[in-house]
Amino acid sequence: MLTDAQLDALNVVLVSPRNPLNIGAAARAMANFGFSRLAVVAPYEEHWREAKSAIGASDLLQNARRTESLAEAVADCTLVVGTGTLDHRRPEQAVVALPDLGPHIAAELARSGRVALVFGPEKRGLTRDDLALCHLLVEIPTDSRQPSMNLGQAVAVCLYELAARSLRSASDESAAHIPHSAADQAAPASSRDLDLVAAVVTETMQAANYSPRAMQKANRHDLDLLLRRLKLEQRDARRILGLFRRILWRLKR
Amino acid sequence: MLTDAQLDALNVVLVSPRNPLNIGAAARAMANFGFSRLAVVAPYEEHWREAKSAIGASDLLQNARRTESLAEAVADCTLVVGTGTLDHRRPEQAVVALPDLGPHIAAELARSGRVALVFGPEKRGLTRDDLALCHLLVEIPTDSRQPSMNLGQAVAVCLYELAARSLRSASDESAAHIPHSAADQAAPASSRDLDLVAAVVTETMQAANYSPRAMQKANRHDLDLLLRRLKLEQRDARRILGLFRRILWRLKR
Repeated sequence: MLTDAQLDALNVVLVSPRNPLNIGAAARAMANFGFSRLAVVAPYEEHWREAKSAIGASDLLQNARRTESLAEAVADCTLVVGTGTLDHRRPEQAVVALPDLGPHIAAELARSGRVALVFGPEKRGLTRDDLALCHLLVEIPTDSRQPSMNLGQAVAVCLYELAARSLRSASDESAAHIPHSAADQAAPASSRDLDLVAAVVTETMQAANYSPRAMQKANRHDLDLLLRRLKLEQRDARRILGLFRRILWRLKR
Repeated sequence: MLTDAQLDALNVVLVSPRNPLNIGAAARAMANFGFSRLAVVAPYEEHWREAKSAIGASDLLQNARRTESLAEAVADCTLVVGTGTLDHRRPEQAVVALPDLGPHIAAELARSGRVALVFGPEKRGLTRDDLALCHLLVEIPTDSRQPSMNLGQAVAVCLYELAARSLRSASDESAAHIPHSAADQAAPASSRDLDLVAAVVTETMQAANYSPRAMQKANRHDLDLLLRRLKLEQRDARRILGLFRRILWRLKR
């Protein structure tokens, strides 16, 4: 199985879950496979921490983080993986099938990154803006006639794949699966780093009258996607941040 | 994915489930991964066919078989696989970890066998007598601190492993994984065949005053295990049956 350090670097994030029983079921599956770090973003019901379905996982639920936004939940993560069936969308990021996810996560753990596995609300799944905060999308290979899984079952299947299946062997051989250069060993930019960059770039665009007001939301969306596709290191993010702060200061003077 | 013929040869059997929501969740997971043959043995509640949790799987639930006994549910199966975490038991059959189950099932499908995947009731799991009707046990590799999974989640994880994971590749190469001789190509004995043999052998033991009445249950248990360990072909079962019927007729004359 995985080491404690690896398990601690893997976060499960539930975005706007409606049914507390599903939150409890997700917590139970986490305990079953040795995970402990849960974040719940803007849950629909207030009393989700008491969900009866969290059998053997009530501590985990008590210690879960509650955040208002997905950005806040994944702030310290360096690889954010969105889940879902993507049948009716054209995703803007790379998509891997769940059986092929292991090496990507193993490689990220090997360079001391932090990973978030993000699940959307029961009916509609992750929104396009949620997905823009993800570096990678994973698809559970389901039957095309009935692709939509129950939330608790989807969490269980993903964590089984990681804990019991792919990482069990992949952690020994991650280097063989995903070749990475010496540069990859540098600290990767966290989601918080990228959000700081996105915020200052957005502010700069506005200060510079870069585009009409109506385009601002679309610009930010494209920017979120771009920043994740670039696979920035932390030092890159800091350098970009310094540059734009300087530009902004000049524009506003 | 699997062919329709393979999916049709794979049965999911739920033994004495208490909560209809779990039956519905199992049905939903079956639909997600393309399975359709469900049997429910002696369910606790009457109105399980209306379970709301069977999203996208109400037909499957309507068409599920209901039987009074596990023996009846698996009568036409040639490989019966029991599921569970076996931490506190010493199993009497071979046990494989779920990630290693694929080749066993692929080999059985390759010789036109029929497979049952059997799940016990929510709290206590399969009984020792249920397990005696299984050829093989499969264990989901869970954390030893919290091994017990929710029924619907356990079904989802097992079907994901089979449909999306191991059989996807293993069906092409089953011969390489489990060596089998030409004799294995002969029709395997079904569970019904084995039960007929067990019944006539038991009756013969009694007719012959083989052992005290108090030992009869234990004898039958050992006999069930033995018959499955032998991997009888159908013609073997018929031969044994013929022999014991003859002996019995003589004893009773």
